[in-house]
Amino acid sequence: MNLTPIGVIHSPYQSRVQAPRQGRISNNEIVIEVFPDFTPALRGIDQYSHLIVLYWGDRSNREVLQSTTPHNTKQQVGVFSNRSPNRPNPIAFCVASLVRQEGNQLVVRWVDALDGSPLIDIKPYSPALDSVENAANGQIPNSLTEIAKNRRTDDAGSNQKG
Amino acid sequence: MNLTPIGVIHSPYQSRVQAPRQGRISNNEIVIEVFPDFTPALRGIDQYSHLIVLYWGDRSNREVLQSTTPHNTKQQVGVFSNRSPNRPNPIAFCVASLVRQEGNQLVVRWVDALDGSPLIDIKPYSPALDSVENAANGQIPNSLTEIAKNRRTDDAGSNQKG
Repeated sequence: MNLTPIGVIHSPYQSRVQAPRQGRISNNEIVIEVFPDFTPALRGIDQYSHLIVLYWGDRSNREVLQSTTPHNTKQQVGVFSNRSPNRPNPIAFCVASLVRQEGNQLVVRWVDALDGSPLIDIKPYSPALDSVENAANGQIPNSLTEIAKNRRTDDAGSNQKG
Repeated sequence: MNLTPIGVIHSPYQSRVQAPRQGRISNNEIVIEVFPDFTPALRGIDQYSHLIVLYWGDRSNREVLQSTTPHNTKQQVGVFSNRSPNRPNPIAFCVASLVRQEGNQLVVRWVDALDGSPLIDIKPYSPALDSVENAANGQIPNSLTEIAKNRRTDDAGSNQKG
């Protein structure tokens, strides 16, 4: 299973410590550049306000199977139970708010990618398919304010998010 | 960028024509088997009612860049503007409802994977991060009933979803 880079993400974040805990807690504009070979696949994308963005966490640690989270620093949980960028297949998932399209570039908000991260896929966000307002949630707080609050002092080292 | 299979999905769907248009329109129980090497990464997953499941569309066509959708059969749109399984990197995304955990097996609903699809990643679903109730949507209807309705006669051949 080999991935093809379909583009690259340009962000102000050079290292994990500069990036927001989660993309959605920041309103910074991020530029998603789609490579020319794949621009026909963007046709119609301006009909959507929100997109699912998948990118490759090229600076992630793929060996980690459990870690603590910023919201509970006492107990290790599995990486499939948290949103750490460190996981066997470091495919990061963000719901992005589409600000505007400029040809093969999409200006978006809510993406937490480090600068230069390879873009893997874009899908249109559908509330009917993708929104579950009342999902029960063991570790991640239910408000963005709370998610932003629990900033770990060792975020830089651990690469842990939520 | 090489992916490691972390498990396999067992479903009643042997071919695309048997699978639901989208996982969320079916309540069939699907079994996600996580391989033993990765089961420590599941720790704590039973605290969540919903999961993000990423799997590999191993029977997808990676060359397709534009296609029509069941909801508008007259105009081709880019694959980054639709939810077709055919795309350069065939990583399928489902929000899954977790029914129960049985050791290294997760029984879920809302997953549309063909039987035997390689599992790539699991993440906990967070309403604060992942839910956008009012996202504007150009092609995909805003209700599951409508999504289920527009069954194409050529679904089997085109592999197109939404």
